[in-house]
Amino acid sequence: MVLATHTKPATTDFGAAVALSCRECGTRYDLGPDFACIECFGPLEVAYEFGPVSREQIEAGPTSVWRYRALLPVPADVADKPNLAPGWTKLVRADRLAAELGLRSLHIKDDSGNPTHSFKDRVVAIAVEAARNFGFHTLSCSSTGNLAGAVTAAAARAGLDACVFIPADLEQAKVVMGSVYGGRLVGIEGTYDEVNRFCSELIGDPLGDKWGFVNVNLRPYYAEGSKTLAYEIAEQLGWRLPEQIVIPIASGSQLTKIDKGFAELIKLGLVEDRPYKVIGAQAAGCAPVATAFRAGHDVIKPVKPDTIAKSLAIGNPADAPYVLDIVRRTGGVVEDVTDDQIVDAIRLLARTEGIFAETAGGVTVGVLTKLAREGRLDPEAETVVLNTGDGLKTLDAVAAHARPSAVIRPSLDAFRATVAE
Amino acid sequence: MVLATHTKPATTDFGAAVALSCRECGTRYDLGPDFACIECFGPLEVAYEFGPVSREQIEAGPTSVWRYRALLPVPADVADKPNLAPGWTKLVRADRLAAELGLRSLHIKDDSGNPTHSFKDRVVAIAVEAARNFGFHTLSCSSTGNLAGAVTAAAARAGLDACVFIPADLEQAKVVMGSVYGGRLVGIEGTYDEVNRFCSELIGDPLGDKWGFVNVNLRPYYAEGSKTLAYEIAEQLGWRLPEQIVIPIASGSQLTKIDKGFAELIKLGLVEDRPYKVIGAQAAGCAPVATAFRAGHDVIKPVKPDTIAKSLAIGNPADAPYVLDIVRRTGGVVEDVTDDQIVDAIRLLARTEGIFAETAGGVTVGVLTKLAREGRLDPEAETVVLNTGDGLKTLDAVAAHARPSAVIRPSLDAFRATVAE
Repeated sequence: MVLATHTKPATTDFGAAVALSCRECGTRYDLGPDFACIECFGPLEVAYEFGPVSREQIEAGPTSVWRYRALLPVPADVADKPNLAPGWTKLVRADRLAAELGLRSLHIKDDSGNPTHSFKDRVVAIAVEAARNFGFHTLSCSSTGNLAGAVTAAAARAGLDACVFIPADLEQAKVVMGSVYGGRLVGIEGTYDEVNRFCSELIGDPLGDKWGFVNVNLRPYYAEGSKTLAYEIAEQLGWRLPEQIVIPIASGSQLTKIDKGFAELIKLGLVEDRPYKVIGAQAAGCAPVATAFRAGHDVIKPVKPDTIAKSLAIGNPADAPYVLDIVRRTGGVVEDVTDDQIVDAIRLLARTEGIFAETAGGVTVGVLTKLAREGRLDPEAETVVLNTGDGLKTLDAVAAHARPSAVIRPSLDAFRATVAE
Repeated sequence: MVLATHTKPATTDFGAAVALSCRECGTRYDLGPDFACIECFGPLEVAYEFGPVSREQIEAGPTSVWRYRALLPVPADVADKPNLAPGWTKLVRADRLAAELGLRSLHIKDDSGNPTHSFKDRVVAIAVEAARNFGFHTLSCSSTGNLAGAVTAAAARAGLDACVFIPADLEQAKVVMGSVYGGRLVGIEGTYDEVNRFCSELIGDPLGDKWGFVNVNLRPYYAEGSKTLAYEIAEQLGWRLPEQIVIPIASGSQLTKIDKGFAELIKLGLVEDRPYKVIGAQAAGCAPVATAFRAGHDVIKPVKPDTIAKSLAIGNPADAPYVLDIVRRTGGVVEDVTDDQIVDAIRLLARTEGIFAETAGGVTVGVLTKLAREGRLDPEAETVVLNTGDGLKTLDAVAAHARPSAVIRPSLDAFRATVAE
């Protein structure tokens, strides 16, 4: 094992995690705040030596991501430390939407129920534990918006400082969410990809010393949080993998970790090994992975994003090659939808299931709708669609369609006139 | 038993509920869509004949309000019907806020985790069952905002029509939430109290036939949903009543039903009978109950609301006499806070616990803060504070305080300059 590049505090406890491992060349490293292989510059991910894990053990755990603590790089007592306890969000049976689309079995995994109303609370919760392990005093990130709120909220509750970076042109709700928890929120004049590059520079600078950038130097730990989506979906289906799953693609990390989570459940004997198709969803205004998929390419060409789905607006997604590999291996597709289709999908989901999704949820439901209507989905297969965020954060997307049907004086005659219209 | 004023469908099933009972004179009625006593015009509430209910039975139930179905006017199979499955929100141990206020034990009951992010999902869920029982095809309400979203979302999921009424000057988030689910949203030029009066007229009109107004003709059922807050708090504390609880007052119904819920738990032997103090919280810009409490009056003088806490802006709260009675009986108080104190409290809660509350949560945390700093709370008592809504719906309240600390070019030099400031 290669020596760690940072000194590990004596008290670190990462549960069943034993090393960082390069996804490209397999070189292993001690568990440290490292994210790239010094041999080949490949991304590092957490490697485990799992003991036996039973369904009963998990089911007896808390109703949060911590019920899966034995499968995450966290100590056994993680649930007792101050944290937002995200996860265990609803898997909603969507019979009315299924009927509209001609599908037999459809569920929405609705992560708008998380503490700051996006799936980011899952990944940040794991990063906070890593930050504690490494003795970092400040939590930081580059963010398209949801992450800024998740990081500053989690830092507030954990008693850590926070300094987060966002593109300066984000939705008001995300700006408020990124600053109300008392951390420092810095707007950057540029795209998310420029914000991200800036953060990578800051890590090498003394200014960023003792800072845990959740999606840079804590990324291997952080990214593991997305596995909990896979675990929860399988457990909530009655310890069964879905046959089709539609996942949004921003960096692509979430999709790869859900696949990793399914694989772990199979390996541990917690679910039956059966085939599942992974379907990736992008906005047409930022669809480098969908474009590469259609062209049969293994690598993507970066794009400059232009879409209302800002939480997915990553023009150079780091995990794109792995996403393409997983989608092709499982027999899925990567598809994209226009901004209009995103808005239509948000409204369709709200009208049929009473779920108000963020634009990212409009992307996944939009892709589901597109594939179903074009006959490109198996209508008999048990299907799960992710909604990773909350419509309250992207109000402008639907504001033009979501107004009072009338404004009247408080009189029956005035109401009769509107009904007669 | 007095004859029902409406015909009851043959298939109604209200679980352990056996009648409606007048809160003033005790006259009993069949379970119907009625809300006022024809003898004395007093409000009707649901009366039960409970069978034995055990902690184990409840704990084995779903993680939603339906775990308490045996204590609600709903059928045993209620959880199987399409519904939003609200409730079982987090009871957050708030050690950092407690430390700031000098309290020993403090929890936040955080109802922003409900499907439409307010406690209204609880009460609407019960009203939907009543609407089904009575064969109503349209769900309606007067709303200060949160209820409109809760009703239209629940109707969408249940496959019912919706037509809801709001004051025309509400926050954008609440307007969007009230219309995105596909129901009809009507803005009324007037205060909430005027909207409410309008709805009472509409019930007597053929236009409103077969309409279930959740907070008018379904109110006895609807109001019972607030009891689940009491049940959850007690269960989540380890089947124990809190010693102090801070509850916001709008109509006052929630406060009276939490008290009723605690009393039922004692009567059923599910918790030990110990004293608890009920503390009511209002905004100074709409504080008729706090004013009456301080003056030693039993009835309130209606006011015209002027506060940022719009979800509490009911100037003539129907349950005020019962609230005053409960608060005095338990040794509590009713207190109010200014709009500035509400904003400070929202920020305090966010900064210490990572919870972003609606203005109504700013009112309860503000009153807690005021009482604690003035030495009017028992610092040793186990205390629970309600947050009944989500900060994302009242962004404007904190927008002036929640901005980026800087907007810079993506360069280390630019960041250094802001840090040096």
